[in-house]
Amino acid sequence: MLVVVTYDVSTETAAGRRRLRRVAKVCESTGQRVQKSVFECQVNEMQMEQLERALLAEIDETADNLRFYRITESAHLRVKQYGVFRAVDFEGPLVI
Amino acid sequence: MLVVVTYDVSTETAAGRRRLRRVAKVCESTGQRVQKSVFECQVNEMQMEQLERALLAEIDETADNLRFYRITESAHLRVKQYGVFRAVDFEGPLVI
Repeated sequence: MLVVVTYDVSTETAAGRRRLRRVAKVCESTGQRVQKSVFECQVNEMQMEQLERALLAEIDETADNLRFYRITESAHLRVKQYGVFRAVDFEGPLVI
Repeated sequence: MLVVVTYDVSTETAAGRRRLRRVAKVCESTGQRVQKSVFECQVNEMQMEQLERALLAEIDETADNLRFYRITESAHLRVKQYGVFRAVDFEGPLVI
């Protein structure tokens, strides 16, 4: 199945920025980055559980937000995308 | 159906930051903000078309990225979320 992972990681502190890098690294090991904080992962139930566990180990639930969307709609319907995906320095600090 | 809208809007220029505010405004009129650049919208096909058209009118397809995910999985399976959703000043400039 396709699972879309989205996250908001608080980057106000050095620890937050470290978490953001780690969350991205975990997602990159499983899926395809499609936006700054959005990954598309083709996984089975076991891989999904592993991904979930790995991400939960990285985030700070008192400061960050992590969401998983399971998508079972047929491929031509489920995802629509427009515009470019710009390769920026995702490892750099995200200042808000 | 539930449609998840995610976007990356380039905020390097004043025009980009204006686009980001407008995109957020369009999404807010239809859905629920769940992360900085992620909205969940309960829409029918007609509303979905309207939303798509309104967002396409705002983004710059040479600089931004906009994605729509249709989610038809049953409610208790389709979305999982962890952590907090922090209310920050989304209207302020997003500096990357």
